[in-house]
Amino acid sequence: MALDTAYAADTPPVDLAAMQQRLDQLESLVGKLQSELDTERTARQRVEANTWVRPVTDGKSLKMQSPSGDFSFQMGGRIEADFAHYNQDRQKLGDGTDMRRARLYAQGTLYRDWDWKFEYEFADNSTSSTNSKGITDAYLRYKGFAPLLITAGNFKQPFGLEQMMSAHNLTFTERALSQTFVPGRGIGIGVQGSGAHWSLAGAAAGERPEGDVAAEGDEGWNLSARGTFAPFVDPGRVLHFGASAWRHEPQDSGNALRWRSKPESNVTGVFLVDTGQLTGVDDFLASAAEAAGVWGPLSLQAEYMRANLTRAKARDASFDGWYAQASWFLTGETRPYKVADGIFDRVTPKASVGLGGWGAWEVAARLSDVDLTDAGIVGGQQRDLTLALNWYLAPNLRLMLDYVRVLELDRPGNLADDDEPSSLTGRLHVDF
Amino acid sequence: MALDTAYAADTPPVDLAAMQQRLDQLESLVGKLQSELDTERTARQRVEANTWVRPVTDGKSLKMQSPSGDFSFQMGGRIEADFAHYNQDRQKLGDGTDMRRARLYAQGTLYRDWDWKFEYEFADNSTSSTNSKGITDAYLRYKGFAPLLITAGNFKQPFGLEQMMSAHNLTFTERALSQTFVPGRGIGIGVQGSGAHWSLAGAAAGERPEGDVAAEGDEGWNLSARGTFAPFVDPGRVLHFGASAWRHEPQDSGNALRWRSKPESNVTGVFLVDTGQLTGVDDFLASAAEAAGVWGPLSLQAEYMRANLTRAKARDASFDGWYAQASWFLTGETRPYKVADGIFDRVTPKASVGLGGWGAWEVAARLSDVDLTDAGIVGGQQRDLTLALNWYLAPNLRLMLDYVRVLELDRPGNLADDDEPSSLTGRLHVDF
Amino acid sequence: MALDTAYAADTPPVDLAAMQQRLDQLESLVGKLQSELDTERTARQRVEANTWVRPVTDGKSLKMQSPSGDFSFQMGGRIEADFAHYNQDRQKLGDGTDMRRARLYAQGTLYRDWDWKFEYEFADNSTSSTNSKGITDAYLRYKGFAPLLITAGNFKQPFGLEQMMSAHNLTFTERALSQTFVPGRGIGIGVQGSGAHWSLAGAAAGERPEGDVAAEGDEGWNLSARGTFAPFVDPGRVLHFGASAWRHEPQDSGNALRWRSKPESNVTGVFLVDTGQLTGVDDFLASAAEAAGVWGPLSLQAEYMRANLTRAKARDASFDGWYAQASWFLTGETRPYKVADGIFDRVTPKASVGLGGWGAWEVAARLSDVDLTDAGIVGGQQRDLTLALNWYLAPNLRLMLDYVRVLELDRPGNLADDDEPSSLTGRLHVDF
Repeated sequence: MALDTAYAADTPPVDLAAMQQRLDQLESLVGKLQSELDTERTARQRVEANTWVRPVTDGKSLKMQSPSGDFSFQMGGRIEADFAHYNQDRQKLGDGTDMRRARLYAQGTLYRDWDWKFEYEFADNSTSSTNSKGITDAYLRYKGFAPLLITAGNFKQPFGLEQMMSAHNLTFTERALSQTFVPGRGIGIGVQGSGAHWSLAGAAAGERPEGDVAAEGDEGWNLSARGTFAPFVDPGRVLHFGASAWRHEPQDSGNALRWRSKPESNVTGVFLVDTGQLTGVDDFLASAAEAAGVWGPLSLQAEYMRANLTRAKARDASFDGWYAQASWFLTGETRPYKVADGIFDRVTPKASVGLGGWGAWEVAARLSDVDLTDAGIVGGQQRDLTLALNWYLAPNLRLMLDYVRVLELDRPGNLADDDEPSSLTGRLHVDF
Repeated sequence: MALDTAYAADTPPVDLAAMQQRLDQLESLVGKLQSELDTERTARQRVEANTWVRPVTDGKSLKMQSPSGDFSFQMGGRIEADFAHYNQDRQKLGDGTDMRRARLYAQGTLYRDWDWKFEYEFADNSTSSTNSKGITDAYLRYKGFAPLLITAGNFKQPFGLEQMMSAHNLTFTERALSQTFVPGRGIGIGVQGSGAHWSLAGAAAGERPEGDVAAEGDEGWNLSARGTFAPFVDPGRVLHFGASAWRHEPQDSGNALRWRSKPESNVTGVFLVDTGQLTGVDDFLASAAEAAGVWGPLSLQAEYMRANLTRAKARDASFDGWYAQASWFLTGETRPYKVADGIFDRVTPKASVGLGGWGAWEVAARLSDVDLTDAGIVGGQQRDLTLALNWYLAPNLRLMLDYVRVLELDRPGNLADDDEPSSLTGRLHVDF
Repeated sequence: MALDTAYAADTPPVDLAAMQQRLDQLESLVGKLQSELDTERTARQRVEANTWVRPVTDGKSLKMQSPSGDFSFQMGGRIEADFAHYNQDRQKLGDGTDMRRARLYAQGTLYRDWDWKFEYEFADNSTSSTNSKGITDAYLRYKGFAPLLITAGNFKQPFGLEQMMSAHNLTFTERALSQTFVPGRGIGIGVQGSGAHWSLAGAAAGERPEGDVAAEGDEGWNLSARGTFAPFVDPGRVLHFGASAWRHEPQDSGNALRWRSKPESNVTGVFLVDTGQLTGVDDFLASAAEAAGVWGPLSLQAEYMRANLTRAKARDASFDGWYAQASWFLTGETRPYKVADGIFDRVTPKASVGLGGWGAWEVAARLSDVDLTDAGIVGGQQRDLTLALNWYLAPNLRLMLDYVRVLELDRPGNLADDDEPSSLTGRLHVDF
């Protein structure tokens, strides 16, 4: 104890001074560290504020976004390359390759409430009436009153289910025969709204220019509307109904109204049914009804479309068409539904190729029909059966194979009358 | 005191040993913290060095930039969608819609001193002589001798005030009638310089191809220059004068020289005044004078342009045109001036829509005139009055409404002679 | 000592309590610092995970990349503006300017193993057979079996050395006369592989559409292959050999087969040698041999190409062409070689302009020849000498000047027969 005390009495003075020195140093060091850390935090926050690049949620694309989300800018596009072999009859169809779609888009958000999009189609399918080289989307959309959206510019006029869906998400390489009765895109104004189980959209737009439009005459006008109702919208359990109407008044100085369909394969330039240029049409009203359901990997879908023409100097005419399809995901995926637009959305494989899986595999069948013969107009009547095999390697990579068999083709007076050609169409699809 | 000493003698040994241990631990911890912080700083600096994305100052677009600023890359574009209704006379003008401009651009900086830009016009206004589908800007600019700039490639040749301004920043939907006398863009070389109160620009460029240019003949050539002087350049207080000259020698084997103007609304395809294809023109000299002033929300602006043609086998001819305009910002904004280019710049609303304000509102009026009749050429003479209402929702979002009244139209022998049509043109403008 | 003890006995109690307090504070502070640093590290890691932008290695462009590298997105393009003066004979060639190439591309990687590219040519050289406005690259490439690469879509079919090289990296403004015998791009499937000293590539593709292709006939088909071998591939010491073959079967209903060459300057629209449209060709086989060597700043390169036509209703025909060229870097650079593709790559100046240097300077000469006259087809025979001066201001900025002298032109019956024109062509090249 004395030793201890002696020790304590002897040695502490040295220890205590040194310890105090060490304490002083430590306090200074810790203060310096605190200041350095504050500096570092500020530097990192500055970096973060300048970092506007985040991966887009679907993992396929890239998007720049301001930290607040009020401003964003995104670029992307798609490539679709086709190959087709035709087993033709009298009317030759022409095997070959085709760049079906090659698009680039830019889109973004400005001042939180304004979305814009600009997309251009670079592929030149000059024989296709609804998909030729040119501006596709070019619009500004106000979402300040969301879920009410107001759109102005060039955009797709609401009509029909397949028509409103992006080709990204279609089950077959081409839309059905009946999809000739759709308004396509136009320059105008649109309004849309939606609830938990419904969507409603309407638009007024100028005439889609087809062929040579004389500049001197007034442009035609379109009014279109579509409503959908979905009592069930759960993943893997969807029931959907929809109805559309489209009134068109053609340009006053003559008009190039025409309905026609390719045999659900786009490599050929031939339209097996075709009304030719219809003149003297005062106006027409098209209507469409749709129903679809999803039960796990099974999907059913059908649409009926009809167009009634009014002609002052000739009999009124009426054309129609329909399709019904079924598809099944062998790998168990299910088609997602987007209630705000009343459409089906992109399928995501459970396990993408390259991420340890074999992607999603889907088989599908479709029966489709179009009748373009009425009131002295002999556009023809056609019925097709399509069988399809789709391989979704990843959400945005897809290989498609369609076998189309023309079951019936009535077009009296035309080389193709009574032909029953079939086709095998392959597609490579990538969007980014 | 003895107690204290006893206490000191009794307890310290334990405390001191523990304290020393704690000190050791603290020193070790602080050393570890310092090292971790250094690692963290290095990591953050690496992130910062790889972070090239910063918001562009005008808040409307995004730009990637290297930390040094020596390299940058930016993409953007614009959409302009028009609607027009015409109150026409004998000459039909044709109501309708039009995608007026739909452009995408990429631009950037390389190795600090080199700027490049590439812009493409996707809208196909095939009836417009100066704005049709195709490459607009495609140039490389050297700024190593700044403020002297050297530009090579395809770019706008210096001539006139309205012509040199981007359509982003014009007061009316269309440039004035007199703007047919401008050289447009060409492939060539340009030099420009500027001081605190002046700018000077000159260019030599190939002929702008119009219609079918036979490849065998030598291309025509252009020389153009523009100088501006602004005694006052303060915000809200600008006085501006300018003068331009343009000499053109057409292609040697025939030439498709033509001057014409639409009635200051572009949806119609009709040019109410039009010289038709002028052949046998040896060369011509165009000149222009401009004056403008800004006093707070008030802006005044006027230009006069004249073209003198020399023809060996016919009488020389001379055409001219002018416009004068006034505009007033109801919401108090003022037009900004860019002295380096001698032009007016983008208007920024005091409070944009969506950011708590109602944007900027502007009213404007313009009187414009063009005379394309001389020396046996009867292109016509036209005078228009335009009244405009502009709503700038944000710096890059604008709704425009123009009422144009043709006050006078002398074009003997043409259907449109003595017509006095009027038009109402609406535009949606967004640039990004 | 007593004093010390006394001191120790007197003062320590105070010091020790304070010191313990200081220690407590320090421990708490250091704990807080540790926690703050952990928070900071997490924040920085979150920033880093969201930071997908990194400078591309060549310092000329920008690229977005996910931290894992599995996803990337890049945009770029190029501008090439030409000026040419012709010293012509009977056949006029036409001085002037030309936008030779104006391209934008987007490319990227998806799910690690998939590369895609989409490029569009905006410059409209309608008179050029291989370089007109339209989609250039639009393909998807699987690299999961690298170095074996599988490509599908629209891409360059393997054939020849100059043809497979990007115009970025060519020594002269235009490819040689003999390069009319190349397949160009097509929609199809390609496979390529490479080793340390060799590369091998093959492709099957549809017919490149030239002019009006009737949709009813089956498209023609191409099979092409190219192999290269390089015994030496060291920087500054390269020896390269290659051979290619291309079999083409034209469309069944008539075909627009045509071979022709401009006089190695593209501003003119005139092809001095031209077979015209060849019909009734059953098929043809083209073959090519190549050799090249690099020894420091010296580069030698030569190719020979031949096409053999089979015609049922006329005599078989055979055309051929060749070129041999030498170039020398006055500033000591050497042409880099890319063994995986069997081509020469981009030249990087030792010191770029703006980075303290004067760039790279290169002189070059080329002799080229094409013979399109055989079996009653009088396309003509031409031989040119080209002298070139290239100034590489930076890896992606180049000024080029080519003097081409037609040494011999045999095209009996044509205006250009026996002409010996010369041309001076300047080019501004920037890619980004």
